[in-house]
Amino acid sequence: MSDIAALAAALDGIETSADRALLRLKSRDFYWYSPILKKQLDGKSAELIARPKDEAEVLRILGACRAARVPVTVRGGGTGNYGQCVPLQGGVLLDMTAMAAPLSIADGVVEVECGAKMIDLDLWCRDRGWELKLWPSTKRTATIGGFVAGGGAGVGGIAHGTLRERGNLLGARIATMQDPPRILDLEGDEAAPVNRTYGTTGVMTRIRLPLTPAQDWRDVAIAFPDFVPASRFALALAFADGIPKKMCAVFDSQLPPFFKGIAEAVPAGHALVLAMVAPSALRALRDLAREHGGMVVAEQDTVAAERDGDATPFYEYCWNHTTLQVLKRDRGVTYLQCRFPFEDTLKAVEAVRIPFGDEVWMHTECVRFGGRTTMTALPVVRWTTPERLYEIIAAFEAQGIAIANPHVLTIEEGSNYRRVPGDQLGFKRMADPLGLLNPGKMRDFTIEDAAA
Amino acid sequence: MSDIAALAAALDGIETSADRALLRLKSRDFYWYSPILKKQLDGKSAELIARPKDEAEVLRILGACRAARVPVTVRGGGTGNYGQCVPLQGGVLLDMTAMAAPLSIADGVVEVECGAKMIDLDLWCRDRGWELKLWPSTKRTATIGGFVAGGGAGVGGIAHGTLRERGNLLGARIATMQDPPRILDLEGDEAAPVNRTYGTTGVMTRIRLPLTPAQDWRDVAIAFPDFVPASRFALALAFADGIPKKMCAVFDSQLPPFFKGIAEAVPAGHALVLAMVAPSALRALRDLAREHGGMVVAEQDTVAAERDGDATPFYEYCWNHTTLQVLKRDRGVTYLQCRFPFEDTLKAVEAVRIPFGDEVWMHTECVRFGGRTTMTALPVVRWTTPERLYEIIAAFEAQGIAIANPHVLTIEEGSNYRRVPGDQLGFKRMADPLGLLNPGKMRDFTIEDAAA
Repeated sequence: MSDIAALAAALDGIETSADRALLRLKSRDFYWYSPILKKQLDGKSAELIARPKDEAEVLRILGACRAARVPVTVRGGGTGNYGQCVPLQGGVLLDMTAMAAPLSIADGVVEVECGAKMIDLDLWCRDRGWELKLWPSTKRTATIGGFVAGGGAGVGGIAHGTLRERGNLLGARIATMQDPPRILDLEGDEAAPVNRTYGTTGVMTRIRLPLTPAQDWRDVAIAFPDFVPASRFALALAFADGIPKKMCAVFDSQLPPFFKGIAEAVPAGHALVLAMVAPSALRALRDLAREHGGMVVAEQDTVAAERDGDATPFYEYCWNHTTLQVLKRDRGVTYLQCRFPFEDTLKAVEAVRIPFGDEVWMHTECVRFGGRTTMTALPVVRWTTPERLYEIIAAFEAQGIAIANPHVLTIEEGSNYRRVPGDQLGFKRMADPLGLLNPGKMRDFTIEDAAA
Repeated sequence: MSDIAALAAALDGIETSADRALLRLKSRDFYWYSPILKKQLDGKSAELIARPKDEAEVLRILGACRAARVPVTVRGGGTGNYGQCVPLQGGVLLDMTAMAAPLSIADGVVEVECGAKMIDLDLWCRDRGWELKLWPSTKRTATIGGFVAGGGAGVGGIAHGTLRERGNLLGARIATMQDPPRILDLEGDEAAPVNRTYGTTGVMTRIRLPLTPAQDWRDVAIAFPDFVPASRFALALAFADGIPKKMCAVFDSQLPPFFKGIAEAVPAGHALVLAMVAPSALRALRDLAREHGGMVVAEQDTVAAERDGDATPFYEYCWNHTTLQVLKRDRGVTYLQCRFPFEDTLKAVEAVRIPFGDEVWMHTECVRFGGRTTMTALPVVRWTTPERLYEIIAAFEAQGIAIANPHVLTIEEGSNYRRVPGDQLGFKRMADPLGLLNPGKMRDFTIEDAAA
């Protein structure tokens, strides 16, 4: 009997599967947006899927894997773009989607099992008068555990910053890979070591997140004759404290034709801003748009669109959904992630948008980092070679633009400005001394490091 | 029969009074915080009080005053500090407190009669799931009309900016001093000319304000061994997007002993930070305070304190209540209002705090202007002479600190960075061609100016 067969036998009573098709499916995420990662990760697969229904089962699985020295890679909705949940060394794929219950809301804090889909969680909170501060464009499929472990930025970032801001993740319960595995309850700053570490520092079972009082939102699409006035408007909106908002994205004129639901509303050759604002702010938004020469071309109720499976909330054109919308019709593109300087932001955007012309289709998102407002970008990039991609990255960096490289596998290489403060490496030595949790993803960890 | 007696007769059916004691009382505000204004304004009085109950009565009063060429000065709660509602040329004092009804909430926008007390308005909104974005420390006595006409900054400014931010005032109905007086309904940017113009550009009758979803708040008092770490903490809190807040004030060690309800909790010689945060953020606040060497010394439920007439919400130690708390025990002080630079903020604070030692007791308030975070200050200043006060002002300005001088009568002189964008002067020419509305307060207006 192989190690894996023995392991499966040891997990009797827990939902497991060794079905080849399912293993292939569950060992993937959206890493294929990157031709570089695609080459590295295609074919990587776990050998067994385990789908625990509670913490006791998680601990049994981790205990059995530890005993057998089998790696464990955690997976939520599989919506990552860095191969976060792709097992590099086989082993067990820990599918958390059976642990998906919202547990409680008290004083504006929700406690939830980590496998809850974010759309379900948000609507559950909304029915109770609250909403999530932040969500990814993949809200309809991403889990909250996956978002904390592998995401952390997105819609809401223009109001609340990213998940790395102190206070945006209030706590987590995790299962460790110690001997024996145990449950830790991390509160406040203590939870930083499991924030955006791809499941390398423990298996999150429950998460505590602060909420914000629920309100209605309006998706608004505003067309501009050119990218520059669109960007000036977007920055003015980002800095307009009198206009409550959760999103403000700018697209150069090449991109709107790929946005199926609204493409026809955008005049040819026009740049586009997509924003999500409070209904009370619509008049102020229109005043501001008029001042910048913009024209409102589409508007809808965001939450109504979310609740309607056939509708598309505008955030599904934003963040990394922009790249996806293009990839649906043109597989020859990839993307970058970057952050522009806080001062002279638009000048830095133009310094790379103009020289790279048709090769880089600019897409920026307004966001707050450390309490200051700037633009990040997820431009769509015409793919030719890795060398050319790295030339483009170097040209961006030469302009003072920070790159969070989405063409690498490790937390350290991909994080850059997205890194969460805290001693993640020290924590991993404690929680996963044998280095069995998603091995290969935390670059700086070596087994010799660990106090095993 | 005097002009005023004739006017009173013409206003038959409208509540009026020529009682001397009442005239004296209603012709004052809190201008006496400034010894300079006290000298100029003591003894100034209206000749008749009129207290309309609806727009029709407002129009009748304005029509009669126009016909008789009698000035009209509007008054809400009389909580201003610039003599905003002190009639410089006698005439009619228009007391708006009988028009105090909240009218509706729709899509997060409240429409309210201008004489509503802000505390009543806020609690009315709160019962319906919403709250005001901004209020002054005088919330318990100030009216919403007075706040829009003569205030505009305060609690909430660290989250929403001031009332001058586009979107924070959505509209107003005003009565003009045209021939005949009429009602205008101003929407969005159109309302800017009545925003913080001391009732010189029209008589507001109704106001439309955006609300924010109601939530609980916690008052927290945090003591620090010194002013500098207290300020560093306050700035860190101001920039902490993961901590929802409405207030963050810093007091040098001379000030807490004047704060009756909490003085005993603050160790002698300690600086103090007073903050108002969401309950969900208390843990993150404590983590941040510990990092900066601060000690939580008092905490309470803000809204519960507001609803209890015997309790003091912490905002009643902040903004210009700080000066009031000191004046209750020491009439030898006055104050300044200033805004520090966005960069190297604390350096600018220290550049004036240190040299002026015991003469200027520093009190800063974190706030957002144009989407950027900084500190304003309302330091308590030991009063000696006007010359010395202007020396201090000059020294502040030499450090790049903007002064909104609270020792002057006119909008233009007192506004500086608090000026609302818009053509207030042009609007006044249209709405008040004879210059009868609060004459003497808009410096740049002359009757020859007007298209009378």
